[in-house]
Amino acid sequence: MTISAIDTIMSHRSIRKFKNQKLSEEQIQTIVTAAQQASTSSHVMAYTIIGITDESIKEQLAEISGQPYVKDNGHLFVFCGDLHRVEQIGSNEERLAMQKSLESSEQFIVMTIDAALAAQNAAITAEGLGLGICFLGSLRNDVQKVNDLLRLPPRVIPLFGLAVGYPDQEPELKPRLPYEAVYHHNTYLQIEKQLPFIQQFDQELHDYYQIRTQNKRKDTWTEQMVRKFSNPIRMDVAPFLKMKNVNKQ
Amino acid sequence: MTISAIDTIMSHRSIRKFKNQKLSEEQIQTIVTAAQQASTSSHVMAYTIIGITDESIKEQLAEISGQPYVKDNGHLFVFCGDLHRVEQIGSNEERLAMQKSLESSEQFIVMTIDAALAAQNAAITAEGLGLGICFLGSLRNDVQKVNDLLRLPPRVIPLFGLAVGYPDQEPELKPRLPYEAVYHHNTYLQIEKQLPFIQQFDQELHDYYQIRTQNKRKDTWTEQMVRKFSNPIRMDVAPFLKMKNVNKQ
Repeated sequence: MTISAIDTIMSHRSIRKFKNQKLSEEQIQTIVTAAQQASTSSHVMAYTIIGITDESIKEQLAEISGQPYVKDNGHLFVFCGDLHRVEQIGSNEERLAMQKSLESSEQFIVMTIDAALAAQNAAITAEGLGLGICFLGSLRNDVQKVNDLLRLPPRVIPLFGLAVGYPDQEPELKPRLPYEAVYHHNTYLQIEKQLPFIQQFDQELHDYYQIRTQNKRKDTWTEQMVRKFSNPIRMDVAPFLKMKNVNKQ
Repeated sequence: MTISAIDTIMSHRSIRKFKNQKLSEEQIQTIVTAAQQASTSSHVMAYTIIGITDESIKEQLAEISGQPYVKDNGHLFVFCGDLHRVEQIGSNEERLAMQKSLESSEQFIVMTIDAALAAQNAAITAEGLGLGICFLGSLRNDVQKVNDLLRLPPRVIPLFGLAVGYPDQEPELKPRLPYEAVYHHNTYLQIEKQLPFIQQFDQELHDYYQIRTQNKRKDTWTEQMVRKFSNPIRMDVAPFLKMKNVNKQ
């Protein structure tokens, strides 16, 4: 039976425990080819996908992330923003003329969005193949070390990983913020008008944590967010980006 | 007949001419709900989607973008990165403690990726419904003006638009960089080894422009990229972000 794109998307949950079975070369090719089909700003395709099969690199990435499923999965992809490729195809003179643009925050946005659109295609394709996925922002715990491990040249930065594999768990669908808080009409909905929906969500998430089968806890979204943002993390990302000659001006 | 996620993804082309027919409320709800189901970093959901139905706002956005299909479509979504919501749910004291994190480039990456993952879900869902889509980075031609039109508070930034509608054209599938240039193994593939694939792509794209039915031209990818990046655009984005209190440190 064929499952539609919408049904695949609507049944997404992140998988953090995979069976000990590798993806086939054909599965990997399908996933990457689908990723490449995503929209891209001005046809720049400002990203590179690195597949990690070297067990030593995988182990070191798992250590950086603190997540065992970075190592234990069917395949590991690392999505990088890439403005190196377009720079290097120019002559010396042309490269000089391209500096200002390549260093801009605008092009940093382009590379980040391009990589994310491609990655979401990869994720949905993997799920369409019956596999599970988990995005790994945790690779940014030590961007410099990931950069060195993957030997990324200037203007290539590691954005996130994507672990893919055969699911060995069946987590519940995780609730999302109410539609009315996220989807606004013509102008931004003032926060006072969002608050009732957020309070409703706090209650919903509190109940979800109480009844879910694993990892029960007492918590609301508001409590989680305040706790998370009161503890600044990855403050080395900004200087790292400047060192890589992106997001500078 | 049900079309699978992979088939929907693989047949993507951007649509730049739509029939004069609006999306139904149900279609909009399906698209936004699917967008919300995307993965999100630490459950932050750091984005807001604004649906534009006000014809005067649409006209002004079309003027900023220089693209008629920003106005002439079935529905227009604007995807914004949003760290305002999580800031405002805290007490005064908590907000103070959250400043440093909210200002960081790390959280700027989070909001940009969160918004893009959601948007790609929206795009695929729309295509799964038989609609066409076009991403609109062109809204960043004047971020300040878009910001003012949509009355975005601090820490909310317009990232891109998504035009959706009933296709009134059938463009060819646009070629992508060869798989081998984009997908690397364990470490970044040195540019010298990518160049043969890029040259192959230059020829492929040159041929594509010659044989496609509309907008024939003589061009290669390399020529396009050098031309594009030699002409810095949107250099006001970086100071705009700082003014909005994101991507500052």
